[in-house]
Amino acid sequence: MLELPTAAATEAAGALTDLAIVLIAAKLGDELFKRIGQPAIVGEILAGVAVGPAVLGLVELGEVLEVFAELGVVFLLFWVGLETRLHEMRAVGGVATRVGVAGVVVPFAGGVGTGLLLGESTETSMFLGAALAATSVGITSAVLAELGALGTRAAKTILGAAVIDDILALTLVAVAVGIAAEGGVDVLSIAIALAISAGFVVFVALGGVRILQSRPGLLHEPRFSESPLLPAVMLCLVLAALAAEIGLATVIGAFLAGLIVAETKDQHPIEEEVAGLYAFFPPFFFVSVGLQIETSIFTDPGTLGLLALVTVVAVLTKLAGAAIGTRGIARNEARTIQVGMVPRGEVGIIVAGIGATAGVLDAELFAAIVGMSVLTTVAVPPVLRRLIESP
Amino acid sequence: MLELPTAAATEAAGALTDLAIVLIAAKLGDELFKRIGQPAIVGEILAGVAVGPAVLGLVELGEVLEVFAELGVVFLLFWVGLETRLHEMRAVGGVATRVGVAGVVVPFAGGVGTGLLLGESTETSMFLGAALAATSVGITSAVLAELGALGTRAAKTILGAAVIDDILALTLVAVAVGIAAEGGVDVLSIAIALAISAGFVVFVALGGVRILQSRPGLLHEPRFSESPLLPAVMLCLVLAALAAEIGLATVIGAFLAGLIVAETKDQHPIEEEVAGLYAFFPPFFFVSVGLQIETSIFTDPGTLGLLALVTVVAVLTKLAGAAIGTRGIARNEARTIQVGMVPRGEVGIIVAGIGATAGVLDAELFAAIVGMSVLTTVAVPPVLRRLIESP
Repeated sequence: MLELPTAAATEAAGALTDLAIVLIAAKLGDELFKRIGQPAIVGEILAGVAVGPAVLGLVELGEVLEVFAELGVVFLLFWVGLETRLHEMRAVGGVATRVGVAGVVVPFAGGVGTGLLLGESTETSMFLGAALAATSVGITSAVLAELGALGTRAAKTILGAAVIDDILALTLVAVAVGIAAEGGVDVLSIAIALAISAGFVVFVALGGVRILQSRPGLLHEPRFSESPLLPAVMLCLVLAALAAEIGLATVIGAFLAGLIVAETKDQHPIEEEVAGLYAFFPPFFFVSVGLQIETSIFTDPGTLGLLALVTVVAVLTKLAGAAIGTRGIARNEARTIQVGMVPRGEVGIIVAGIGATAGVLDAELFAAIVGMSVLTTVAVPPVLRRLIESP
Repeated sequence: MLELPTAAATEAAGALTDLAIVLIAAKLGDELFKRIGQPAIVGEILAGVAVGPAVLGLVELGEVLEVFAELGVVFLLFWVGLETRLHEMRAVGGVATRVGVAGVVVPFAGGVGTGLLLGESTETSMFLGAALAATSVGITSAVLAELGALGTRAAKTILGAAVIDDILALTLVAVAVGIAAEGGVDVLSIAIALAISAGFVVFVALGGVRILQSRPGLLHEPRFSESPLLPAVMLCLVLAALAAEIGLATVIGAFLAGLIVAETKDQHPIEEEVAGLYAFFPPFFFVSVGLQIETSIFTDPGTLGLLALVTVVAVLTKLAGAAIGTRGIARNEARTIQVGMVPRGEVGIIVAGIGATAGVLDAELFAAIVGMSVLTTVAVPPVLRRLIESP
């Protein structure tokens, strides 16, 4: 060994080693779960638990891995957007809105109630409610994509509901943060934030689609790229960053970018170009979900009990909320939508992280919420698969 | 704006914004230079100077950008490896070895001599010599790829020479570090390091190629991937990380991985699958080269003079060294090889960084070496293009 004291070289090498370990672990989990006939993404998440601090301790979630995970879910939703057309989303708009709204209100109320029953403060209970509110559209989309079911009406409804869900859930988080920090909420500023978020989604979707409908060759015009891949990826990154700037999840921007670029598909099937990025990045997202699990979740009986309670409340309230939204729909489709809304994944973890940073959630409750996110995420894919494959 | 105190969301959004700015800047530079008939990568590097601390100050080179830049040059050399066959490398082995060895020895001697003439210490002069020694195979490869000239014998010779060049240059850095840190060198440990590096290259290249020649379907066997892309990318990351672990540049591992995977190309043209990653990552590398330029290089006359001197020495000694190696070769091909070895790019910058961290290079000399790396990198592509297009 040359034993160079090269900070730069060692850092880059260390980061490459971490990325290689994560990718290999993800694909071993994927391979194993495919061989036993289970959904691949569950294998990838459990691979994250295995190489993470809870079991082997090979990798930790540092800044670089977080960005790769973020790009993973961004390219995942970009792909999902590419498979979606705006007019199809409009067709399911009514049901999606009902599912999105009821699917946030019921779990939020359930979480707040559970917190109060446990004797927690109002602030803590509000955070628990907010953490139970938002569906992880990333996980559900990945399962739907794996099953080739993105084209179904149930999938479109889930996607539409998840976008509305995300806007409402992040508004709830803002309310919870306001109460925790200042003991009250500025209703006007919350209303403005809500209007900006909704306006961003509507304006970008309608405007972007209209522009590309009238100039479908736009992405082919730059000389810097023979294919439309890079112009499309740039649109995706810009909209993802913009969404985050106004307080939404990056995936909403990425989904909108995919939806817009999908308008050019008749002329050029861009999916082939994106396939490499879509294969490379998402595994970092799935593994990173598993990496968040700490040892305490397996060893501390109090945490385990809390985890069980939170998980049951999370599942039942989401199913109930979605059921309100899907009344009048064919039974199997309604069930698919209800189950598809259950996974919390990264969103629950992010909200829990905000609460822990603000000092409102203690370590036990934080671990339970993270555990609930992983459990709902791991439990749903097999059920969803059965619902979709045997109608 | 929701004004969430979400460390995680803000960080990820900030990183996405930086990545978007870098990618957009790179492609604007690319577009502009293509329109004025100049090599695209020069436009990308100058875009890095423009958005970096020296001019607009929009982005800085943080950990995340460094990893993206590293993956950029890794996927670049992986692609170059894919376009290369081992037997072609063997055919140019003799000339490549001579060019590699003489192309390190002459610039190293020139750098040490210049340092001593300037009245610098032996340690500082050794570092200056080491910083002038290693060619940036990334830059030259990118120009050759842009011109569609990777298949020429000159290109193969440059690649082979650059691999040898890198092994020798990093050995020189180890020697320089040893002298700076302990006032002497353990000759045995340096010899062992040199043997390990050379052994790694030979063993991986011959062994890997033999394995895939006897089982060309190996990359298709895992069920986790319909295409051989991910198995190939995993091999690339593992070999890049391994190369870095033994003190070589990551790109050597990536190049070897490409060389090995190229053996399966007859059955499946893997380039199409890699195209997305090859389009996405390398711009981060080119921009990051430009980002290293500081304002002082434009404003301080002493630094400017030093930059001019170091650049002249760097260019002339590399041309002279390569000329020794290319004796007896057709004149135009020899010139292409000589000019192709001139760019220092990232390697010179890394070596300068090691010297600065060790306290052996002062800020002025560091800035001059970084400036020389960028200048040789920006100046060579147009010349190389003319040599290749008008034989």
